[in-house]
Amino acid sequence: MNAEQLRKGIEEAVLAVRERRPLAGSVTNGVTTDFVANAQLAVGGSAAMVYLPDEGEALVAAGDAVYVNMGTLLPVHEQTIPAVVKAAHAAGKTCVLDPVGIGIGQLRTDILSALKPFKPRIVRGNASEIIALAGLWELEGDASELGRAHGVDTTDAVDAARGAACALARYTGGAVAVSGEVDLVTDGTTIVHVQGGSELMERVTGFGCSLGGVCAVYAAVVDPFTAALAATAHYNVAGLRAAAAHAAPASFKQAFLDELYRIQPAGIAHCELTVE
Amino acid sequence: MNAEQLRKGIEEAVLAVRERRPLAGSVTNGVTTDFVANAQLAVGGSAAMVYLPDEGEALVAAGDAVYVNMGTLLPVHEQTIPAVVKAAHAAGKTCVLDPVGIGIGQLRTDILSALKPFKPRIVRGNASEIIALAGLWELEGDASELGRAHGVDTTDAVDAARGAACALARYTGGAVAVSGEVDLVTDGTTIVHVQGGSELMERVTGFGCSLGGVCAVYAAVVDPFTAALAATAHYNVAGLRAAAAHAAPASFKQAFLDELYRIQPAGIAHCELTVE
Amino acid sequence: MNAEQLRKGIEEAVLAVRERRPLAGSVTNGVTTDFVANAQLAVGGSAAMVYLPDEGEALVAAGDAVYVNMGTLLPVHEQTIPAVVKAAHAAGKTCVLDPVGIGIGQLRTDILSALKPFKPRIVRGNASEIIALAGLWELEGDASELGRAHGVDTTDAVDAARGAACALARYTGGAVAVSGEVDLVTDGTTIVHVQGGSELMERVTGFGCSLGGVCAVYAAVVDPFTAALAATAHYNVAGLRAAAAHAAPASFKQAFLDELYRIQPAGIAHCELTVE
Repeated sequence: MNAEQLRKGIEEAVLAVRERRPLAGSVTNGVTTDFVANAQLAVGGSAAMVYLPDEGEALVAAGDAVYVNMGTLLPVHEQTIPAVVKAAHAAGKTCVLDPVGIGIGQLRTDILSALKPFKPRIVRGNASEIIALAGLWELEGDASELGRAHGVDTTDAVDAARGAACALARYTGGAVAVSGEVDLVTDGTTIVHVQGGSELMERVTGFGCSLGGVCAVYAAVVDPFTAALAATAHYNVAGLRAAAAHAAPASFKQAFLDELYRIQPAGIAHCELTVE
Repeated sequence: MNAEQLRKGIEEAVLAVRERRPLAGSVTNGVTTDFVANAQLAVGGSAAMVYLPDEGEALVAAGDAVYVNMGTLLPVHEQTIPAVVKAAHAAGKTCVLDPVGIGIGQLRTDILSALKPFKPRIVRGNASEIIALAGLWELEGDASELGRAHGVDTTDAVDAARGAACALARYTGGAVAVSGEVDLVTDGTTIVHVQGGSELMERVTGFGCSLGGVCAVYAAVVDPFTAALAATAHYNVAGLRAAAAHAAPASFKQAFLDELYRIQPAGIAHCELTVE
Repeated sequence: MNAEQLRKGIEEAVLAVRERRPLAGSVTNGVTTDFVANAQLAVGGSAAMVYLPDEGEALVAAGDAVYVNMGTLLPVHEQTIPAVVKAAHAAGKTCVLDPVGIGIGQLRTDILSALKPFKPRIVRGNASEIIALAGLWELEGDASELGRAHGVDTTDAVDAARGAACALARYTGGAVAVSGEVDLVTDGTTIVHVQGGSELMERVTGFGCSLGGVCAVYAAVVDPFTAALAATAHYNVAGLRAAAAHAAPASFKQAFLDELYRIQPAGIAHCELTVE
């Protein structure tokens, strides 16, 4: 696909979300739920967060995509997260997985290992997390990569995750979005680099988590690759605009959410992107 | 009661909250706790949120009203929510119940069914939720209504919930507040329609949840009907003012919280309301 | 130590945090996680929140300080909180303890009692909480003080907690920070009073919790007393500046977070402080 086709797909996705207000339910972490829900609402979607297994399955049934974020595990997540990813897979609906915190604690590793057969169609993370997940699933690298990604800090540049991202996308048959200074989105074949955003995104919690939630909103109306790309473009353009007017983190975050809501589809589609 | 009497009650309630800073403890959902607490503080109350059964009972004992929101159930809520609603009933204190998410999952239905004997004196929800709760409690309609309210979306107009709202209010001996384009507040006899607010309230998570928390703050100083009405009026006036200055969701939310704090009692009492 | 030496320590701490971006993991309450994380990021640190025991231990190992806040206990905290405070003690790393809600429920009392041998090197709370904790640990006063501190309200003035604060600091060999109209920070010998802030801090949830989180960020780079003092100074100066521009709670909070990020080290070091 060339850039023109990708831009057309992005624009149609943005329009479709604003028209249909799709529900993308979430099983997500406790730190950033407010930001995730508000970002999903700002782009035009609907939001619902749950903790219990059967409630997660109900959200899969009620929506056309679902978001699973590993952030702040509770004991109940041992049942809920696999149940939700499995239900999405069985129903042929896109599950967006954010493997944040991969490498911290045993339960996180156990759950992520158990998710492999259910092929979440979008995986979103920073470079370290994508490399670690591809290693854990033995798609590229090895499980010893787990040690590189502890906590929420990025220790690798986006480019280092290119092979892992492609391997993951080919395995799931979906897409992978790697967040960094320049973001990378791939379906395993085409690789797109998206520029924009702001360094201030690192000074506010939840930009990564909420991007995952917005990927799920887009995935409720278009294919995983277009969804990951539209969400990434939307974030980069909104981040650029917000940073143009605000130089401190809290006012930047507020302006960012306002921009998510305000930007016209054509403005999102004309983000700075390059295709390999 | 006529409009003049209602306005007088609202103004007195606003003054009483600002003077006494009453505590209204909450067992509430994880997505919107920050918004609930900040709204309760902005109107002049005090806030405390807990998860454990004996802590919920301690908050009932420490305050004059309590707020229970069904949003994001955890296993512990199976004990905590009935314990808190029961304790409030036994102590003759107002419990505000928000049956959000009614119809998602088995535990939510089980807990809501178990709450019936403890008659929470204020129920707040959107039209679908109020209709579903009245059906579940077999006060009007039937339990098949559960299927109509899944998630946090309103599928019915406020007017469709008029019968269910009155039936619920008569059953509990308290009040019901139905949120929508025009809000409805009733004690089972008098029906008040309150206008104001903004469509932007649907593009931000937690306006409904935090209104429930503010109902509890007011219920700590006045009767349930006046409390539900004062909180609804406060929200509508603050929403109107915030929307007059801000056209995007995040800046709107911030201005709304500021307005909750700023508006004078007379300004709240002079909201746009009609009485049947 | 005299004021000049203290100011020098504060300035160096602020510089060190901005250079090293230290991780201070948290086991903290569900109401204010977003505020805690954003404050930690705004001052220059890194943030990660967890619930499970082994994840808490992993965060102790990964960072140089850790934050434990008792706010909204879940059943899992019975294991996690003691495990984390014990791990920090064993590793010789500073644990910051916020005993918020001391006196509500049995589990909170049981956990706080169990923490005594592990001497968290910084304790932060309002006057009632500090008095109650010193009583519970039988360092000063007695356990009947528990009854005085219920919920999040301050019922005692900071000066009333002077003895309890010094007793706690001497017992842990660290520092205690008491929040109030004028804050008090002590290492058990030197007592520092820090002025600034704003009354609006009481109209927004999480100023106390997030101050605890920022104490942990500073404690990752300097000794407990300097860390508690630097965090307290940072909060007071940012609060003063934000209040100079904003008179309502939500815009005040946003400006406060922006100021945390913006203020230069010398500006923080020149806060209004007096030493006894």
